[in-house]
Amino acid sequence: MFTGLSAFPHTPLRDDAFDEAAYAGLIERLAAVGVDSITALGSTGSYMYLDREERRRAAKTAVQRAGAVPVMVGIGALRTAQVHRLAEDAQNAGASAVLLAPVTYQALTPEEVLGLFEDVTAELSVPLVVYDNPRTTHVQFTDELYARIATLPHVASIKIPGVPAEPDLAAERVATIRTHIPDTVTVGVSGDDAAARGLIAGCDAWYSVIGGTLPGPALKITRAALSGDHAGALAESVRLEPLWALFAEHGSYRVTAAIIEHLGLAATDCLPRPVQGLDRSARALLVQVLEELELTG
Amino acid sequence: MFTGLSAFPHTPLRDDAFDEAAYAGLIERLAAVGVDSITALGSTGSYMYLDREERRRAAKTAVQRAGAVPVMVGIGALRTAQVHRLAEDAQNAGASAVLLAPVTYQALTPEEVLGLFEDVTAELSVPLVVYDNPRTTHVQFTDELYARIATLPHVASIKIPGVPAEPDLAAERVATIRTHIPDTVTVGVSGDDAAARGLIAGCDAWYSVIGGTLPGPALKITRAALSGDHAGALAESVRLEPLWALFAEHGSYRVTAAIIEHLGLAATDCLPRPVQGLDRSARALLVQVLEELELTG
Repeated sequence: MFTGLSAFPHTPLRDDAFDEAAYAGLIERLAAVGVDSITALGSTGSYMYLDREERRRAAKTAVQRAGAVPVMVGIGALRTAQVHRLAEDAQNAGASAVLLAPVTYQALTPEEVLGLFEDVTAELSVPLVVYDNPRTTHVQFTDELYARIATLPHVASIKIPGVPAEPDLAAERVATIRTHIPDTVTVGVSGDDAAARGLIAGCDAWYSVIGGTLPGPALKITRAALSGDHAGALAESVRLEPLWALFAEHGSYRVTAAIIEHLGLAATDCLPRPVQGLDRSARALLVQVLEELELTG
Repeated sequence: MFTGLSAFPHTPLRDDAFDEAAYAGLIERLAAVGVDSITALGSTGSYMYLDREERRRAAKTAVQRAGAVPVMVGIGALRTAQVHRLAEDAQNAGASAVLLAPVTYQALTPEEVLGLFEDVTAELSVPLVVYDNPRTTHVQFTDELYARIATLPHVASIKIPGVPAEPDLAAERVATIRTHIPDTVTVGVSGDDAAARGLIAGCDAWYSVIGGTLPGPALKITRAALSGDHAGALAESVRLEPLWALFAEHGSYRVTAAIIEHLGLAATDCLPRPVQGLDRSARALLVQVLEELELTG
C-alpha cells in the first residue's frame, strides 16, 4: 500500500458544502484506472478546511467507492485532541491507513512535533504515513526527527517534500533518509514535478496531486520509473512541464481544482473560500495546455 | 476602544478542556485594574485550537466578567464559512468588536486575503480589527493591502506586527501606514518588546500579550507613553528585558502560560497539545526573572 502511485483527489464543494456525488465520481474514476492507493483528505483534498462531519462523510464515501483500492485518510488538525477524534472517525470509516501532518498555528518545537506523533500512534490501530509538507505546515523536519518518528509503532511511510534536481544528489538524498529509518518504512516523494526524479532516485511511492485528478499520466510515470524505464518516466514528466509551470505559478491545489471543474467532474467554485479558483485568463491558458497535452478526459 | 491597552488573556485548559472558572478569574483580574479593552481569543487566547462551542463559551464568559471594559473577540478560522459563524457567535455573546487574522493552510493571494475581509465585513454589525500576524498566518501584508482593507465597512483598527528599533524609522513607519488608511482607523502595535517604541512612534494602541497576564507593567508603559512620558515608558520596557528575552527564546505564548500557572491562575498544562509548556529548567529561570522584577502577583 505504501508503494507505487497514491492518488490525492480533491474533496469538491458545491455551494460551499461537501459535494458527495462529485466526490464519489472522482473516487470511482481513480479506482477504475488502478491507482495503487487513494489518499482521501490530503492537502489537495482540503482536509484543513472541512469540519469533522464533512471529513467523516468524505472518508466513508472514499472507502465505499474505492473498491479494492486501499484508502488512506488525512487526520491532521491543529490540536492533538482533534487528531485523535479524526483518527477514530477514519478507522471507523474503514481507512487502511492514516496520513498525519504536524499542522501549526503557533510554531512547534521538534519535541512537540515528536510528541504529537507519539500521542497519535499510541492510540492507533492502522498504519500511519508521516506527512512532511513544509509549505503548508511551516515545520522543517530534520533527518534526526524522521529517525525518531519512524521508529514509533504504526509508522509505515514518510511523504517527503521533494528531491534535489541533480540525479546523483537525489539518489544520495533518498539513501541518506534510508539510513535514518527502519527498512520497513517506505519513502514517498511529493511535489509532482519532482516525482519521476524521486522514483528513479529510489523512492518507493509517489504521493501525487495530479494522480488524483489526471491519473493516466501519473500512472505512466510511476509504472515506467518503477520498472526501470527511467527515460520513459522522465520523458512523460518533461512532456507535462507546461502543467508543472502552472502549478508553480498558481499552486497545484488551484490548478487541479480548475481541471476537475473544466472536465465537469465538479461544480464551479469547488474550493473552500477564502481560497478562490483561477481567474478567467489563467483558466483559458490551462485549457489550452490540457488540449495541447491531450489531457482532456 | 481602539486606543490604549488591549489585554490578550490566555484561554486556559484543564485536562484538555476549556477551564471556564480560571478564564473568568483572568478576565475579572484584567477588568479590575482598568485595561482599556480585553481581546478574548487572540493568538495568546488559543483561538485556533478551540472548537466552536469552546469559543462561544469563552466569548460569553469574557463579556459577562469584563464589566464596563469592552471585549473584542477573535473570529479567525481557515474557512470563510467558519469565520461567518464565529462572527455571529461573538456578536450574540455581546462582543464590542471582532479581531480577524487571515489564517492560512494553503498560502493565500492578496486578492484572496482582501476577499476574506470583504466577505466578513459585509455581514458584520460591530467594528473589526485587522490582525496582521505574519508569524502565525504566514501572510505578508503590504501597505497597498492595508489600504484596500482599511476602507471596508466596520474596519476600525489595524494590529501591526511591530515597528523598527530606531525611533525615527519607527515614527516614519507609523506615519507611512497612516497615509494609506482613513483617519478613523487606528494603528495598534504588537510584539511586546516593541510596544513602548511603537506607542512613542505614534501608535494609538498596544495589542498586548503581557497585558493579558501581568497588566500592571503593561498599563504603566501605556499610560506613560500616551501621556508624553517617553522616558518613563522606555525605562519600564527596558526593565522588563529579561522577560522579553524569554519571550524571544520560547515564544510569548508558552511563557505567559507558565506565568499564569505559576501564579495559580490556571491549572498546570493549560495549553492545548501538541503545544507543550516550558520545561522544568525554563520554568525555574522564569520564576527567578519574575521574582527579580517583582512581578509576583
